[in-house]
Amino acid sequence: MSFSNLDLVNEGDGFPYYQADPDLYTASISTYYELRVEGHDYPLGYMLPSVAEVFRDVPSWNLNDEERILTLNGGDTQEERSQRIEHTLLALKETGHFKVLDKWRNELYAVYGKNKELLFNVERSASPLFGVVTYGAHLTAYVRTKEGELKIWVPRRARTKQTYGGMLDNAVAGGIASGERPFESLVRECGEEASLPEDLVRRKAMAVGTVTYFYIRKANAGGETNLMQPECQYVYDLELPEDTIPKPGDDEVDEFYLWSVSEVQEAMAKGEFKPNCALVMLDFFIRHGIVTSENERDYIEIVSRLHRRLEFPTL
Amino acid sequence: MSFSNLDLVNEGDGFPYYQADPDLYTASISTYYELRVEGHDYPLGYMLPSVAEVFRDVPSWNLNDEERILTLNGGDTQEERSQRIEHTLLALKETGHFKVLDKWRNELYAVYGKNKELLFNVERSASPLFGVVTYGAHLTAYVRTKEGELKIWVPRRARTKQTYGGMLDNAVAGGIASGERPFESLVRECGEEASLPEDLVRRKAMAVGTVTYFYIRKANAGGETNLMQPECQYVYDLELPEDTIPKPGDDEVDEFYLWSVSEVQEAMAKGEFKPNCALVMLDFFIRHGIVTSENERDYIEIVSRLHRRLEFPTL
Repeated sequence: MSFSNLDLVNEGDGFPYYQADPDLYTASISTYYELRVEGHDYPLGYMLPSVAEVFRDVPSWNLNDEERILTLNGGDTQEERSQRIEHTLLALKETGHFKVLDKWRNELYAVYGKNKELLFNVERSASPLFGVVTYGAHLTAYVRTKEGELKIWVPRRARTKQTYGGMLDNAVAGGIASGERPFESLVRECGEEASLPEDLVRRKAMAVGTVTYFYIRKANAGGETNLMQPECQYVYDLELPEDTIPKPGDDEVDEFYLWSVSEVQEAMAKGEFKPNCALVMLDFFIRHGIVTSENERDYIEIVSRLHRRLEFPTL
Repeated sequence: MSFSNLDLVNEGDGFPYYQADPDLYTASISTYYELRVEGHDYPLGYMLPSVAEVFRDVPSWNLNDEERILTLNGGDTQEERSQRIEHTLLALKETGHFKVLDKWRNELYAVYGKNKELLFNVERSASPLFGVVTYGAHLTAYVRTKEGELKIWVPRRARTKQTYGGMLDNAVAGGIASGERPFESLVRECGEEASLPEDLVRRKAMAVGTVTYFYIRKANAGGETNLMQPECQYVYDLELPEDTIPKPGDDEVDEFYLWSVSEVQEAMAKGEFKPNCALVMLDFFIRHGIVTSENERDYIEIVSRLHRRLEFPTL
């Protein structure tokens, strides 16, 4: 089995597009529930009916089956909304309703409204239940050898990790906690995950855009499948000196490889990369003139799909 | 009047998005006619009713008012379709029906089907009448000074040019003729427009992605207004040695400036750039860590909008 670049995009960005097939899109949407908060009449995420159903008759929540909307009632401030949500989620964790909550992270993700205001914070492991947009920072670390060859640092995730265990990753990648700025989040992760010196990261890591996509979770994400996960990754490039070697700083990474472009591409074609990390690698290859219109038949489609305009408010 | 980066994006990518406002989108779409060719039941472009109306009862064309579709009938090959279209357009040019046809270019643009097959070629000046996707190659030429400062070569279009006369442009920018490959088109334009040595361009110009958007033509585009122009620009970066000076090679450019980033940004904020060239500059600033999430409040929205997924087939 060999995956084309477009296959990798379809895997990471699996939610349908309205214009590509209005009927399919409408049929998909019509099976979901929208998540809303009272006083804000627009969707913040899409939820599976089986998930929304669990919120029926739970205090603070209103489930409207006719319009297929789950609304968090009351709470005029982000603090009040966040408390109500946490209260519900802790109860659902106790009763074991959702497998994803077994991996409670004690880490809060931010959910924003149309004016970029913080509407509420939600426990990280619960965010795919609500289908809200989550944010991360991903960095590609690379080396230019004396001979001028581009080589890329690729970590393999610990095989014991419950999510995507043993798969390949971006050099540094992590979720952005509520209140954290993207670059500060990246600097922290560069230390924790790759033992990179902070001053080097601050001087040399370069912001190069975002990769946005709408992922539908598979079994290897852990927990319930088909949960919806629209994501925005802030993307950074870091050219490392040949003698700076990333080292696993925690137990999340088994080892780092320094691979040629073709070694990375072979691993991508074998499906060895975590789906969203394959998208970030593709974006790197496009920005560095490696994947071009001359060698990739689906170039235009791929570049657009890596930068999906999400249909929910973003920061 | 000062334009934010998002204002510039809204100017260059003015067609509504379905998810942002389904009602507005549907209301817009419902006033247009779709362009189709017989045997291919999907839109290749959107046309204003006032334009579609002109094709009523013209041989080879069928105007369906109920479904709002203009179909080119007959012609089983791209050659036959292209001939029928040219025949109609030459007649319309004679009768002076459309101002855009006064600037007949004798240059053919390609229109593709869902399997990336060439469906027909169409005279360049007529493409906005049909609202079909057109393709170009845009290059940003820049210099890194000995002091490490990034400076950008910016040409001013000849003030006598009928389209966007006197506005600022990308260092090299041109439409891709049917049959031409993007990089070869770029190499040709680099010679014609900026007198850049071919071997330098071939060695150093780097493909860095595409910028795609759905433009609605204003008066400064020349000819009829509100015509729809979905476009795909193949984007290239070229770092020039300090002693390589671009020179106008034809009468399309008045002069080249070598500007600092802040000089370019000031000119953008004053609305001095041709709309699509402002988008390509923005993409450059994003890829080079100049516009970041830290200094641009609409970062996520802007990055997505610069890479719009067009709703028509593309190459």
